[in-house]
Amino acid sequence: MMRRSFQVAARLGHRRALLRTPCILPGLDPAAAFGSSTDSLVSRFCPVKTDLKDYALPNASWCPDMLSLYQEFLEKTKSDGWVKLPSFKSNRDHIQGLKLPSGLVAASDKSDWRIFTRCIQVEGQGYEYVIFFHPFKKKSVCLFQPGPYLEGPPGFAHGGSLAAMMDETFSKTAYLAGEGLFTLNLNIRFKNLIPVGSLAVLNVQVEKIEDQKLYMSCITQSRDQETVYAKSSGVFLQWQLEEESSPESL
Amino acid sequence: MMRRSFQVAARLGHRRALLRTPCILPGLDPAAAFGSSTDSLVSRFCPVKTDLKDYALPNASWCPDMLSLYQEFLEKTKSDGWVKLPSFKSNRDHIQGLKLPSGLVAASDKSDWRIFTRCIQVEGQGYEYVIFFHPFKKKSVCLFQPGPYLEGPPGFAHGGSLAAMMDETFSKTAYLAGEGLFTLNLNIRFKNLIPVGSLAVLNVQVEKIEDQKLYMSCITQSRDQETVYAKSSGVFLQWQLEEESSPESL
Repeated sequence: MMRRSFQVAARLGHRRALLRTPCILPGLDPAAAFGSSTDSLVSRFCPVKTDLKDYALPNASWCPDMLSLYQEFLEKTKSDGWVKLPSFKSNRDHIQGLKLPSGLVAASDKSDWRIFTRCIQVEGQGYEYVIFFHPFKKKSVCLFQPGPYLEGPPGFAHGGSLAAMMDETFSKTAYLAGEGLFTLNLNIRFKNLIPVGSLAVLNVQVEKIEDQKLYMSCITQSRDQETVYAKSSGVFLQWQLEEESSPESL
Repeated sequence: MMRRSFQVAARLGHRRALLRTPCILPGLDPAAAFGSSTDSLVSRFCPVKTDLKDYALPNASWCPDMLSLYQEFLEKTKSDGWVKLPSFKSNRDHIQGLKLPSGLVAASDKSDWRIFTRCIQVEGQGYEYVIFFHPFKKKSVCLFQPGPYLEGPPGFAHGGSLAAMMDETFSKTAYLAGEGLFTLNLNIRFKNLIPVGSLAVLNVQVEKIEDQKLYMSCITQSRDQETVYAKSSGVFLQWQLEEESSPESL
């Protein structure tokens, strides 16, 4: 099953979509391009009440720049249409009640699964980040502070840690903006090194949704925008998660 | 200083190279393209005796595929020109006695610095990998087994974890093949998801060295080569590390 490539999956998925749902092909309105609206995806993704720990909250390791920009965006959630995304330990927590498309069977043992960008739980040592998403504008801002466990060249973040942060921000944006589920392409041009412990701001924008693919861009900068750390683009494949069967329906 | 971009750095570095060393521009012989030969770089990178822990050694978490391919390549180090690269906790350990080029001042406090791909020290939970390098052929093979802390979609490795593994393998290859020091570009096409706990094999090849840049390609596959997980390319900037001043010379 795993040998089914994304390209084949895209064709199969498209056929399934045609069979199952009204024939709404990706069109001019990204919100209606796929099965679910952005609003319903965001509502489900951001539960009002949950016992799960949200890792995207300020802690003592956050630098002043990160803290103040967080507060700034938090204000914008009240009146400017921005949504602060929660960040749980695993994507399994994010998609409760849903499952991967048929053919992609997830291991279900009792392992301590963690989403990669939350793999280090000691505050300040690994990934510190929070993502804000704007449903109407289809854009995201990620505040990212790499810790000393993310080192590449001495004193600076590993290029791979920024690549992963980009992929994760693209991923959440793609899912909420149009059920983008799998990374097809990631292209990064690195410009400057990010000093460990400092703030990098990722600005992600959905550029278009076409042929079951979301095309996104990202620019990563210092807060004052004077230093560009990297520019990147990402392409994600749209694919609907499936509802998990409830015990009653078995 | 940090606002000096890699592009500007490349020009400055080139000028410095012209002033300091015989004018050997990147040419047909990659080994002689920059300051140090691959053999001398490899010798320094692979100390015969060291007290540092090498994380690229088999442990109980390695799957049978990973173990047997490791043994296969270990045999090739005896007669076929392959070199097993050690993997220390931090790049600071790898470049002892050397430092980043002037202008890139590393933080030097007592933090617990870790190279990103060794950020999780619990065996089997995070990155398990070992890189073999062939100095003459300018290629590398990385055996990579992602653990449950590297999860993206439930049960599968996060795309960003593979991106980081590619960047790290490119990075070590670029350094040893021609003093490639900074990632300029990373372009990845994802084809299939890697199940957590299984083996993925990265085959990296230096394609050319030109204008102070190393151009590399990578294909990531299952061991039987029947499943391609991803294809990628990477461009690295050549730059010489500098000798650290010994106390006597101050």
